[in-house]
Amino acid sequence: MKESDRRTAEGILFTDQYQLTMAQLYFRVGLHEKQVQFDHFFRRYPDYGAHQAGYCVNAGLEWFLDWLRGVRFRNEDARYLREQTGRAGTPVFHDDFLAWLQRAGDFGGITMHAIPEGRVVHPNVPLTVVQGPLAMAQILETSLLSHLNYQTLVATKAARIHESGRRRLMLEFGLRRGHDKGANAGARAALIGGADFSSNVGTSHVLGYPPKGTHAHSMVQLFMSLGMSELDAFRAYADVYPDDCLLLVDTIDTLESGIPNAIRVFEELQRKGHSPVGVRLDSGDLAYLSIQAAKMLDSAGFPGTTIVLSNELDEMVILQIITQITQEAPRYGVEPAQLIDRLAYGVGTRLITSWGEPALGGVYKLVAVQDEGGWLPAIKVSESSIKTPNPGHKLAWRVYDQRGKATADLLSLEDETPGEMDHLVLRHPSTHTRERTLRREEISRVEPLQVKILDKGKLVYDLPSIDEMRRLRLADVRCLDPGVRRLMNPHVYHVSLTQRLWDLKQELIHSARQKSQ
Amino acid sequence: MKESDRRTAEGILFTDQYQLTMAQLYFRVGLHEKQVQFDHFFRRYPDYGAHQAGYCVNAGLEWFLDWLRGVRFRNEDARYLREQTGRAGTPVFHDDFLAWLQRAGDFGGITMHAIPEGRVVHPNVPLTVVQGPLAMAQILETSLLSHLNYQTLVATKAARIHESGRRRLMLEFGLRRGHDKGANAGARAALIGGADFSSNVGTSHVLGYPPKGTHAHSMVQLFMSLGMSELDAFRAYADVYPDDCLLLVDTIDTLESGIPNAIRVFEELQRKGHSPVGVRLDSGDLAYLSIQAAKMLDSAGFPGTTIVLSNELDEMVILQIITQITQEAPRYGVEPAQLIDRLAYGVGTRLITSWGEPALGGVYKLVAVQDEGGWLPAIKVSESSIKTPNPGHKLAWRVYDQRGKATADLLSLEDETPGEMDHLVLRHPSTHTRERTLRREEISRVEPLQVKILDKGKLVYDLPSIDEMRRLRLADVRCLDPGVRRLMNPHVYHVSLTQRLWDLKQELIHSARQKSQ
Repeated sequence: MKESDRRTAEGILFTDQYQLTMAQLYFRVGLHEKQVQFDHFFRRYPDYGAHQAGYCVNAGLEWFLDWLRGVRFRNEDARYLREQTGRAGTPVFHDDFLAWLQRAGDFGGITMHAIPEGRVVHPNVPLTVVQGPLAMAQILETSLLSHLNYQTLVATKAARIHESGRRRLMLEFGLRRGHDKGANAGARAALIGGADFSSNVGTSHVLGYPPKGTHAHSMVQLFMSLGMSELDAFRAYADVYPDDCLLLVDTIDTLESGIPNAIRVFEELQRKGHSPVGVRLDSGDLAYLSIQAAKMLDSAGFPGTTIVLSNELDEMVILQIITQITQEAPRYGVEPAQLIDRLAYGVGTRLITSWGEPALGGVYKLVAVQDEGGWLPAIKVSESSIKTPNPGHKLAWRVYDQRGKATADLLSLEDETPGEMDHLVLRHPSTHTRERTLRREEISRVEPLQVKILDKGKLVYDLPSIDEMRRLRLADVRCLDPGVRRLMNPHVYHVSLTQRLWDLKQELIHSARQKSQ
Repeated sequence: MKESDRRTAEGILFTDQYQLTMAQLYFRVGLHEKQVQFDHFFRRYPDYGAHQAGYCVNAGLEWFLDWLRGVRFRNEDARYLREQTGRAGTPVFHDDFLAWLQRAGDFGGITMHAIPEGRVVHPNVPLTVVQGPLAMAQILETSLLSHLNYQTLVATKAARIHESGRRRLMLEFGLRRGHDKGANAGARAALIGGADFSSNVGTSHVLGYPPKGTHAHSMVQLFMSLGMSELDAFRAYADVYPDDCLLLVDTIDTLESGIPNAIRVFEELQRKGHSPVGVRLDSGDLAYLSIQAAKMLDSAGFPGTTIVLSNELDEMVILQIITQITQEAPRYGVEPAQLIDRLAYGVGTRLITSWGEPALGGVYKLVAVQDEGGWLPAIKVSESSIKTPNPGHKLAWRVYDQRGKATADLLSLEDETPGEMDHLVLRHPSTHTRERTLRREEISRVEPLQVKILDKGKLVYDLPSIDEMRRLRLADVRCLDPGVRRLMNPHVYHVSLTQRLWDLKQELIHSARQKSQ
């Protein structure tokens, strides 16, 4: 895409056409500046088929805010809309609406609360709460979902892979397999969720992380095409990067050629006073090869070198590798725990695309409308009760038990303070027979989850660094019950309503059903 | 991401770190300006699990060219690289290399051939052939793959969905579920592959396509929150868009409320001289509901209205809907063929993410190196013979049989002209026992597939419009055997080598094996 086109396609027109046709309708009937509230949330964890997430990691907010604060309807956007014609050949958008868009078509009226990036989050809890004039709050929907769905999806996948790899060094390698420029957002989300570094140079740069990478098969192959050898290629590499020498050893044959050649070069480096970093294995039976590589490197006097694994890794493949190493390494005289500790993981395609479930179904639902005298909760009665959103202004809380573990997320009415209640009744959001009561003494802490981000378009939030987001994530994951952290068949974390919010929801469903009959 | 950061992250640093460390190594050993050739191709069709593609649709070239021709190493990029330090605290990149990058660090030396966008393509056929100085051709890899993998993936998925929906109107709705800004590339690829329009306003604009969309559930819900009804919402919509009135009818109850209200509004429109467009169904049993909707619309005198279906559609869901309509519609007095003809499909998540296989494994492999006296074919001998790329300069041809159907793609040496051969021996690329001979009289046409795109960085190709790409795709799909077009278990299309290219490959594999022993 050309640069001038990019400014158009990634500006305020980064939205769906129906947001604009609805906005014009609201303008026409005089509702465009009515104050409304939309909640953004997802309804279920990613389900990768053979395995499912038991929690998500929130991500994407800062880049979404950059978008929101940087765009508005420009003259050329209005000119483009003015040229659109419908089936009858007449303009779709009328001059009065376009004039309003040019005057008021920015997000200066938006107030936003959100759960910070890096935090563990669960279904049906509003991650982002948008209040503002109807037309602009509606237009905001598409971009909000696009920015937040994907990063939360990838941060979640990264957290799973990080856990599966026992929190060893994890490198994000997915740029070539990501979805066009979306790969940059994926690299950021991967860092928030669990990757320690990324190979993506540009995005690492803007985030202040050193990019990582050494060499590809093509380097060895090039030397060989010119009549030289793998050993020549390794030596050339070690010459240029004597203190950062990590060699890819599977271009010809890992055990017969790659590792022996790497060891020769490591010995040469050591004699010159440098310590080699390690090797990377990118094909074959990675568990078996890493055992053999460890054995060879140990015998040669390089027990401290890293063994980086790559090639279509994800949380399940890593689980299998670690299981196999635990079972097979002793047979070869290799200590499994030591080997597992020196492994690192380069994760590409399956992280950046969230292989198995490449989209998070985040939604943005109208939950309240301001009318004379105050806010009216809005409800969409769905045929499936699970899809009926929780109405009105709400607060989101996390309840910790006496072990310090998060035991439930709780949605309350705005004037409720669950931390001060004598006991907490946790109502299941859609099944009326399911509830649970927590006594005061069973609770160690009740924490509000949302913070104020924008006040009428003004940023009132100190954006945390990626490092801070990573610390939040680590702390939140530690507070999860091990059952919720399981890679497969995790325990279902409770997301509940207070009794008063439950009562309000039932009352609204009842009256909406009556009205629509 | 902030705008200034975006220019960095989407500029020439939209690459992997190892491309830069390898480039510096090539510089250090004096190979950085050696002329080389890389082939870009994919090894297998997308496999969605329960079903597989039998062909792909090539896409992404023009936006990749925009990138390639718009970036170079800027002073600030060099400054950033200069600041990178390795484990020993010393700079990773040295001043002489950085000076060279600033002087020569663009793609002005690149010559490129490619298969045009919109064409049907197959595994192991070079889609893009890059020749140029080693360092810059290497740095190009990541961005080339990122730009071309994703659009080809989505164009392929779109072509399948288009075929499954019997080439009825298809709308791309995926922006909110795409991978951040990658969704724009997805919208473009969807249009190339089979979607007729997109809801994505900005991308439709820059591509010259009218965006499509009407209204969401939230519009009906808003009216209801304010004490009005679904009918009021529909009427307001019809007032503003009398000639483009397509109503979403499942907010409350499709058959009890949505369709009857839509019919009332359509009657009112008709009395005012407007003809309504139709309805959209976004939940429930879409086949059953579309039969009932058709019946109700027909009885009310609106047999010409469109019924748009949406909600997690893909080629298999559409196949199921059409099958079910064929079986069940007669029971309700509805003619299946007529109903199928009036359907349109809004396809979101599963198109934009290529649900089932969210990445295409396109690769970029060194196949030739220029040395004194000419080009040397390069080969990487893989343990799996299927992964051994076809070496050297090659031409790609499509062979059509007497029915005018494409019967094979054929790779030849550069000095071969298969169209003039008396008979064609088609050798399987990796299995030596598999070959097939075509006699002259069995062949109606042998067509070269690649065209020259860049000559030393200069564009020498007339970029086709999206419409032209769509025509290419339709023509190519028509030339496929129906077995290759099947949604499930397609016939395997033949991709073959000429006898001479096969002989060269065997010779190189043999000598590479000997050298590495």
